[in-house]
Amino acid sequence: MSLDLFFNPRSVAIVGASREKGKVGYEILKNMIDAGFPGDIYPVNPKADTIEGLKCFPNLDSIGTAPDLVIIVIPAKFVPSAMEDCAKIGVKAVVVITAGFKEIGPEGLALEQKVSHIARQSGIRVIGPNCLGVIETTNKVNACFGGDLPIKGGIGYLSQSGALLAAILDMANSRGIGFSRLVSIGNKSDVDELDLIRSFGEDPKTKVIAGYLESITDGTAFVTLAEQISQKKPILLMKSGSTGAGAKAASSHTGSMAGSETAYGCIFTRAGIIRCGSIKIQFDYAQAFASQPLPKGPSVAVITNAGGPGIMAADAIEQQGLTFAKLSEDTIKKLAEKLPAAANVHNPVDVLGDALADRYQFALDVVMADPNVDTILVLLTPQAMTDATETAEAIVNTSKQKHEKPILACFLGAGKIRDGVKILRQGGIPQYDSPEGAVATIKAMSEYVRWKARPKRVVKLFSVNRRKVENIIERNLRASNREIGEMESKEILEAYGFVTPKGSIATTAEQAANIAKQLGYPVVLKIWSPDILHKSDVGGVKIGLTSAKEVMDAFDLMMYRIPKKKPDAEILGVLVQEMCGSGKEVIFGMNRDPQFGSLMMFGMGGTMVEVLKDVSFYLAPITQDEAKQMLVSTRTYKMLTGVRGEKGVDIDSIAEGLQRLSQLVTEFPQIQEMDINPYVVGPQGTTPVAVDARISVEKV
Amino acid sequence: MSLDLFFNPRSVAIVGASREKGKVGYEILKNMIDAGFPGDIYPVNPKADTIEGLKCFPNLDSIGTAPDLVIIVIPAKFVPSAMEDCAKIGVKAVVVITAGFKEIGPEGLALEQKVSHIARQSGIRVIGPNCLGVIETTNKVNACFGGDLPIKGGIGYLSQSGALLAAILDMANSRGIGFSRLVSIGNKSDVDELDLIRSFGEDPKTKVIAGYLESITDGTAFVTLAEQISQKKPILLMKSGSTGAGAKAASSHTGSMAGSETAYGCIFTRAGIIRCGSIKIQFDYAQAFASQPLPKGPSVAVITNAGGPGIMAADAIEQQGLTFAKLSEDTIKKLAEKLPAAANVHNPVDVLGDALADRYQFALDVVMADPNVDTILVLLTPQAMTDATETAEAIVNTSKQKHEKPILACFLGAGKIRDGVKILRQGGIPQYDSPEGAVATIKAMSEYVRWKARPKRVVKLFSVNRRKVENIIERNLRASNREIGEMESKEILEAYGFVTPKGSIATTAEQAANIAKQLGYPVVLKIWSPDILHKSDVGGVKIGLTSAKEVMDAFDLMMYRIPKKKPDAEILGVLVQEMCGSGKEVIFGMNRDPQFGSLMMFGMGGTMVEVLKDVSFYLAPITQDEAKQMLVSTRTYKMLTGVRGEKGVDIDSIAEGLQRLSQLVTEFPQIQEMDINPYVVGPQGTTPVAVDARISVEKV
Repeated sequence: MSLDLFFNPRSVAIVGASREKGKVGYEILKNMIDAGFPGDIYPVNPKADTIEGLKCFPNLDSIGTAPDLVIIVIPAKFVPSAMEDCAKIGVKAVVVITAGFKEIGPEGLALEQKVSHIARQSGIRVIGPNCLGVIETTNKVNACFGGDLPIKGGIGYLSQSGALLAAILDMANSRGIGFSRLVSIGNKSDVDELDLIRSFGEDPKTKVIAGYLESITDGTAFVTLAEQISQKKPILLMKSGSTGAGAKAASSHTGSMAGSETAYGCIFTRAGIIRCGSIKIQFDYAQAFASQPLPKGPSVAVITNAGGPGIMAADAIEQQGLTFAKLSEDTIKKLAEKLPAAANVHNPVDVLGDALADRYQFALDVVMADPNVDTILVLLTPQAMTDATETAEAIVNTSKQKHEKPILACFLGAGKIRDGVKILRQGGIPQYDSPEGAVATIKAMSEYVRWKARPKRVVKLFSVNRRKVENIIERNLRASNREIGEMESKEILEAYGFVTPKGSIATTAEQAANIAKQLGYPVVLKIWSPDILHKSDVGGVKIGLTSAKEVMDAFDLMMYRIPKKKPDAEILGVLVQEMCGSGKEVIFGMNRDPQFGSLMMFGMGGTMVEVLKDVSFYLAPITQDEAKQMLVSTRTYKMLTGVRGEKGVDIDSIAEGLQRLSQLVTEFPQIQEMDINPYVVGPQGTTPVAVDARISVEKV
Repeated sequence: MSLDLFFNPRSVAIVGASREKGKVGYEILKNMIDAGFPGDIYPVNPKADTIEGLKCFPNLDSIGTAPDLVIIVIPAKFVPSAMEDCAKIGVKAVVVITAGFKEIGPEGLALEQKVSHIARQSGIRVIGPNCLGVIETTNKVNACFGGDLPIKGGIGYLSQSGALLAAILDMANSRGIGFSRLVSIGNKSDVDELDLIRSFGEDPKTKVIAGYLESITDGTAFVTLAEQISQKKPILLMKSGSTGAGAKAASSHTGSMAGSETAYGCIFTRAGIIRCGSIKIQFDYAQAFASQPLPKGPSVAVITNAGGPGIMAADAIEQQGLTFAKLSEDTIKKLAEKLPAAANVHNPVDVLGDALADRYQFALDVVMADPNVDTILVLLTPQAMTDATETAEAIVNTSKQKHEKPILACFLGAGKIRDGVKILRQGGIPQYDSPEGAVATIKAMSEYVRWKARPKRVVKLFSVNRRKVENIIERNLRASNREIGEMESKEILEAYGFVTPKGSIATTAEQAANIAKQLGYPVVLKIWSPDILHKSDVGGVKIGLTSAKEVMDAFDLMMYRIPKKKPDAEILGVLVQEMCGSGKEVIFGMNRDPQFGSLMMFGMGGTMVEVLKDVSFYLAPITQDEAKQMLVSTRTYKMLTGVRGEKGVDIDSIAEGLQRLSQLVTEFPQIQEMDINPYVVGPQGTTPVAVDARISVEKV
């Protein structure tokens, strides 16, 4: 069901409306009235005749019609009965402001479940409980106790923290930042972030979706929807509870488990969500996304009336990995013709301290027309002659006339630029209090553009022997084996098109030497025991054996030494395996996140990478492009392409391995965790080998 | 000479005082008067009788006494003659506001040199030219055209950009941030950052030194002084022109070369300077340093009236590497006794949305007394019942009574918290607009505390054969050799106590085999040519040779192949060298920065580190502690201590090698650049070997 009734109701009832100033039941009623809500408002309170001049009803029933939207502010224990009243008269949208539900413990949870039950039974959509309310600026709905109706604008906001929303409202008003809608989602008993993102996505007045989340209700659905919506409009999220300390606070706060940081990183990347580290950053970004066109490329030109801030902007552009625009010859010539001799006609264009609006206007027009420039940042410091107001007007006019390239402004100062800043804001020019903040915003816009232009997601399906894997997994699960043995793990890999080293198990030294002879030297010996997971830790791996004597010695030494280290381990023999060709070792992995599903991992092999924790994650199933992205996003990627004249390895074959693994773990949700380590890859055209694997399974 | 006359003059003359509003000569005079400057003000202007009621003088001479401070605002070409007037009557302090000097090119530079010449001859100290002026708040000196006298406070500010200073003044006034002094240093023809940092360091009213710099005049002197001053009070600097793009803008702006980013990183670390990435961050830090005590440790407790911001703060504390305080049992018990049942009595302490000032006060007192807590962050969001004003008063009172632990506040919002924020600011409680900003500040304070507590810098002096090195370097310089050959490089290393591999040069294959036999196998062969710097690139290194045959083959192959690759190289033979024991390879290096001297470099060996650019720099001479710090600050440091049961290497012997290198490059400024690569280091107690070295020298 659509959420339209929340944002565009013809009538609103407030159950628990109060005459007492300061009480929530009064404040919400007053806010609705003051907002100029054009529909009917029904205060419901058996103890009052009128409130603020409006006729008061003893109960919902007595209104005689079903209000489009009902706001409930009575104490928690009476909420279920109010919900029943709503159901009876056919109400379809309810906001429960009242706190005292899931967040206070088992007792509250039971009450909340009662409310949900009634809602589901009668098809009522519920926002809350334990929330601040709902705001829609165009339709003048201020069913919220956060203060005055905010300025109209293009930002739709949802917040899992009511208190934070209140602070945001307060800040936004003072900064002139406008909203289309704001929703405090409280305990999310029914309407959750997913419903709201969908609804905001469909709302033509909402240009940017922004929000603060502590948890996500349905991981998989969230990713799918967010990816669709991001393609249409940017989603800017603050997500807290990410680190250990924060997550602990989150669980004591909302009673919901916060997802792991890695998983959130993956889904935000996949879904194109722009993550914001603070409210300020979110405001910084939202302003620009809401009012400016997206940049066509990464190149930024700066216009300034002072050298210092120009340098600061140039530094920031370089640090963010954007391009410091090289102005065209033509631009430089034009600028030089009209600007004073002392001006800098290269980027950053310095129009000098005595620049009035006309000089800014001229420079802006010329730079705007330069094909080498994608985004323009205008800096202004208040100097003796500076006219911030007229300069702001010039910028606003240019932006309106030529709305092709984004223009951002950074007027530094306070009182002396205040009026100018007001004009910028009203004119849709995002204004920043530091060059660095503006440049970070340009970076976020560029990243979003890059994400939007990503190749279409086509997940390649390889032809595999699915039945075989199914049999192995089923057999292990029936035997209550959570860890699949090395031999069967390899069979699984082979069924999915991986090449694994040849080899067999020997139980005597002579047999080992025999197998080695058949495989051809050199060979590897590995201890063979279901109880030993980390073989090398107990001396259970010996590589590069080149003769029968070496094989037999190694066999006997393992058999003698390992039982001393691991007396309880059942040792079934020793695996004699062919030695792989030389190449680089990489690691593949998969971890199943309870909320978001399979997280694929890639990393370079070897201990140094372990020290660096240099791995990348991505949500399965992955495309070829994403598989390559996983490689590129490790710091050690260059090692694979070859350094210092060393030949590179076959990148495509690594990407293919990741895609095959992705298919395997997607088709078998029983696989909870797995590693292919090492995956040895040689130069272009050679076949990589999956040397070792670990697979854990569970019934699903 | 002290700069006292600039900050505490008894009389001020303004040469170029004007009656015309908007003119600099008027604005400065007006600012001096409005500031309430208690001394005499002498406007100098031959065309006026009085300005703003003050008697006007036709020239300096006619005043009849030498004013303590003269401000010059007349056109550039007249400035030298005004300077001569100053010299004649015995003026000792002059601020030249006028622009049109060094910054406009050769002509301006000549004029500036004239001014400097007069100043030096007559012992006049000059601030500027091309600057905004000077402010001292207690003595009511506002010899600046930046607007009203700012609020009194503990921050001393110096800026190399006048425009930026104007913006800062405007912002600071609106945020209630107070200053002791502000100086626009302009072209730094005489008084520079060093003079000002010294002067601010001695000024008891200045608690924090802050500034914006684009270049540093005297690198070595700066480091020495800044390190001394940092020990007394924190120095917070914005330094721009750091990246390529920024540096280019800097040189076109101020005509001064910006130092390299690496060098600035080194000197800031060494001198304990706190680097700020933006004006906002600088304000954030300066506020806290100016008014709060330093924390005793890294542990932070949070008090909040809303869950969301509490989680955000907890996340930020973890991300910054601070400690999220674990409250003592006693604290938890006390909090639980008086706070409502729904409150969170663990960190972050949630006093709930309906908390009034008394509840905040109580929680603050209890948490403050907890020995596990070093710093307290108080968060407030404006909710229905919230009283920001009284809460602010409670925080201010607590801070004043128990000024032992730093308290920072983050009141989120705008209008609803405005009065509260004002009280916080007046009461010396730093206020932040996001939990993240507050936590970043706590981090900066902790880092400063850690820096202050660093061990005393004692540079160890090894007994070395200095004479020998001197001879080698002199010999090479006489022969115009910039690159010292491998054999002599090793002699230099040995003279400074490094162990190098044994070996000699062979000119025939038989000779090579002979040398190898004497050294003992295995050996290494290296091509021997003054023209080949990167031997392995041309196949000029062959390691692990174990027999006469292998040695002779390798010799002949080099002699046959290398001349084809490098036809112009003069090949003197092949070096036959003993092969070093196994161990980890690290790299030492030194680069001489033209401004700051020798920058020591340390990194792990191998290509992966090259890909990662994982190296650390430090300014020579280094102490043992600093040498170890160089190791620890690489990301790959753990590789040296041993991972996965692998044995670690002798860390102390690496640190010693770095100290020996530091002594070498300090004692021989002729060495412009050098590498020891690899420096092979084995387990504890073994002697590391400096396998190869490259030394470039120059006459100094």
